[in-house]
Amino acid sequence: MSMSHILSVDAMGGDNAPDVVVDGLSLFLRERSGVSVLLHGDEAKLKPLIGARPALKGRCEIAHTDRYVSSEMKPSQALRRGKGTSMWNAVEAVKTGAASASVSAGNTGALMAISMLILRKMDGVHRPAMTAMWPTMKGRTAVLDVGANIEADASQLMTFAIMGEAYARAVLNKKRPSVALLNIGSEDTKGHDELRGAHERLLSDMIDIDYVGFVEGDDISGGIVDVVVTDGFTGNVALKAGEGVARLVASYVREALTSSTMSKVGAVLASSGLKALRERLNPSNVNGGVLLGLNGVSVKSHGGTDAQGFATACALAMDLAASSYMDEIAENLKRTGTTQVAVD
Amino acid sequence: MSMSHILSVDAMGGDNAPDVVVDGLSLFLRERSGVSVLLHGDEAKLKPLIGARPALKGRCEIAHTDRYVSSEMKPSQALRRGKGTSMWNAVEAVKTGAASASVSAGNTGALMAISMLILRKMDGVHRPAMTAMWPTMKGRTAVLDVGANIEADASQLMTFAIMGEAYARAVLNKKRPSVALLNIGSEDTKGHDELRGAHERLLSDMIDIDYVGFVEGDDISGGIVDVVVTDGFTGNVALKAGEGVARLVASYVREALTSSTMSKVGAVLASSGLKALRERLNPSNVNGGVLLGLNGVSVKSHGGTDAQGFATACALAMDLAASSYMDEIAENLKRTGTTQVAVD
Repeated sequence: MSMSHILSVDAMGGDNAPDVVVDGLSLFLRERSGVSVLLHGDEAKLKPLIGARPALKGRCEIAHTDRYVSSEMKPSQALRRGKGTSMWNAVEAVKTGAASASVSAGNTGALMAISMLILRKMDGVHRPAMTAMWPTMKGRTAVLDVGANIEADASQLMTFAIMGEAYARAVLNKKRPSVALLNIGSEDTKGHDELRGAHERLLSDMIDIDYVGFVEGDDISGGIVDVVVTDGFTGNVALKAGEGVARLVASYVREALTSSTMSKVGAVLASSGLKALRERLNPSNVNGGVLLGLNGVSVKSHGGTDAQGFATACALAMDLAASSYMDEIAENLKRTGTTQVAVD
Repeated sequence: MSMSHILSVDAMGGDNAPDVVVDGLSLFLRERSGVSVLLHGDEAKLKPLIGARPALKGRCEIAHTDRYVSSEMKPSQALRRGKGTSMWNAVEAVKTGAASASVSAGNTGALMAISMLILRKMDGVHRPAMTAMWPTMKGRTAVLDVGANIEADASQLMTFAIMGEAYARAVLNKKRPSVALLNIGSEDTKGHDELRGAHERLLSDMIDIDYVGFVEGDDISGGIVDVVVTDGFTGNVALKAGEGVARLVASYVREALTSSTMSKVGAVLASSGLKALRERLNPSNVNGGVLLGLNGVSVKSHGGTDAQGFATACALAMDLAASSYMDEIAENLKRTGTTQVAVD
C-alpha cells in the first residue's frame, strides 16, 4: 500500500464523533478501492465500531490516543495543549508522510492553527485561505477565503486567486478555471483599495490565469465563474447568509406543499422530484473546506455533518492529494515574484 | 390636502419608466385614500398614461421636466448636471416641503448623492446608510448598511444601529426592536477592531437600545433580531449573495416539479401552495431601500421592479414620513454624545 493511498482521519472531531466518522468512512471506502485509512482516536471506542462495518475490514488502522481537541478549545490553547490529540496526530501523519491527506470534523479554529503549525505555509503564502464549494446554476464554484483571515490586502487576494485557480482545476475538472474578485459593483472604480490593487495586478500579465474582473454577490450562485476570491470576513458572511436563505426558501417550500389537502396530494405525486430537490439542498453533498496554502492537505468537514457529508470530505481530500495543485500554486507564485518579497 | 399626504415621485427612473411607475402609483393610490402624488417627468409622456388610469384621476399632479438622470451617470456627474432632472426635482420637493417623502427607481449612486446634497445629513450622522428589508423565518429584518458606504468605523456602526432601530420601530410595528452586529462568530473576541469597538459601545448603557450582540450571516434569515448592522460592503455582498441563493433554490424547485409527468401533475394539484410560494419569493413585496440619516425621506425602488414593487416602495415612503423615526434618531444620537464630536 503506497503512501498516496492512505487517508489520515481524526475520529474524535465533530458533533457526532466517532459514530458519524466511522459511518462516513464506511461509505467512502465502499466507493474507493485501493485506499486505506489511518484512524486517530480512542481504540476502545473505535474497535467495536470498525468491527461492525464490513467495508472497513482490513482497510482501517487505529492509531490510538485518548486525547482530543474539544469544541470549546481556543486556537491558542490547541497549539499549546493539542499535541498528542486525535486532531494533531491526524495532521501530523501528513507531515511525516504516513498519510497523503487528513480530514477532521473538529473545532475549525483549532484545526486551522494546528494545520498551519504542523504543515507550515508554502513559500510565498503569507496567509492560508479556507475554501468552500458553493452550488450554482451551472455546477459548483470555489469561494475563498471563507474565514481563515478577517482581512486581506491586495497581495494576499492575489495569492488567494492563484490558490483558488489551482484548487478548482484539481477538484472541478476544469482545465482553465475562470476567476473573479467579489465586489459591490462590476466597474473598475468600485471597492476598497485592496480590491482595486488586486484587480490591477490580476489584469497584468504576470500570471497566466483566466481573470474576468469583479463580480457581485448574486453572481456566485449564478455560477458565472469557477473561483470567487474575497477576504475571509466577507466570504464567511456571504456563505452563511446564503445558507440562511437556502434554509428559509426550503421552509417556504415545505409550507407551500402542506398548505392544503390538495397541495399535500400534489407533493406526494411530485415526491420523486422533491426528493431530488432535497438531495440538491443537502449540504452533505458539498461538505469539505480546505485550508489552501499549506504544504499538505488538511480538509475540514462540517462539525454537524452526516455520514454522507463526511464521506464527501474524505473524497475531496484524496482527490486533492492525487492532484498536482500544490506544484501549480508554487509555479504561479514564483511567476508573480511573491516568493521573493515574502516576509512573515 | 396637507403636506404630509403628498408623495413626490421620479417618473423617469428605472428600467421600465415611466410605465411601471404610473402602474405602481395606480396600485398604491387604490390602497391609500387621502394621499396625492407629485409626479416629476415628461408631461407629454405622462399625461396619456395618467389619463388611462382611473385611480390616478385628480390625485396626481405632473411637475414637468424633460431632463432625467441616466442609469450610466456617475454620482459626481449627477451632482454637477443633475439639477432640474426628474430625480433631483423629486427629492427637492421634500426639502421645500411640497411633499413629505420621495421615491425613485433610478440610478442608485446618483439618488444617494443627490439626496445627501439636497436633504443634508442629520446632525451627528457622518454617513447615511442604505437599509434593506430582508424576509426571514419570523417576518422581516432591517439590514443596514447595504451599500451607501464601503467602510464603517465603530462610531458609524453605532449610528447605524441607532438609525436602524428607529426605522424598524417605524415600519415593523415593533415597540422595542432588537439589534445585532453582523460578525463571523458570536464570541466577544471575534471580528475587526471596528466591530469590537461598536460592540463595546452598544453594550454600555449610553443609549436605550435592545442590543443583543453579534450574529452570523445565517442568523439574518433566521430572523433572530429585528435589525442587523454592518458596513456597506459586507451588507451589499450578503444581500446579493442571499438573492442569488434564493433564485438558485427557486430554479431547483422548478426543475423538481417538472422532472416527470407525475411531478407535473403533483405541481398542478399543489398550485395554490406554489402560488403562495412564488408570492413569498417575489422581491416586489420587500422592495424599497431607504437612505437613513438624512433630513427627509428618500426611498430607492429597485430599478427593475414591477408595478407591485413600486407600490410597496411608495407605501414604505409614506409610512416613514408619518412616523417619528427622525426625532427618535436625533434623540438617541444626542444621548450618545455623537452630535458633539461630529466633524465632517
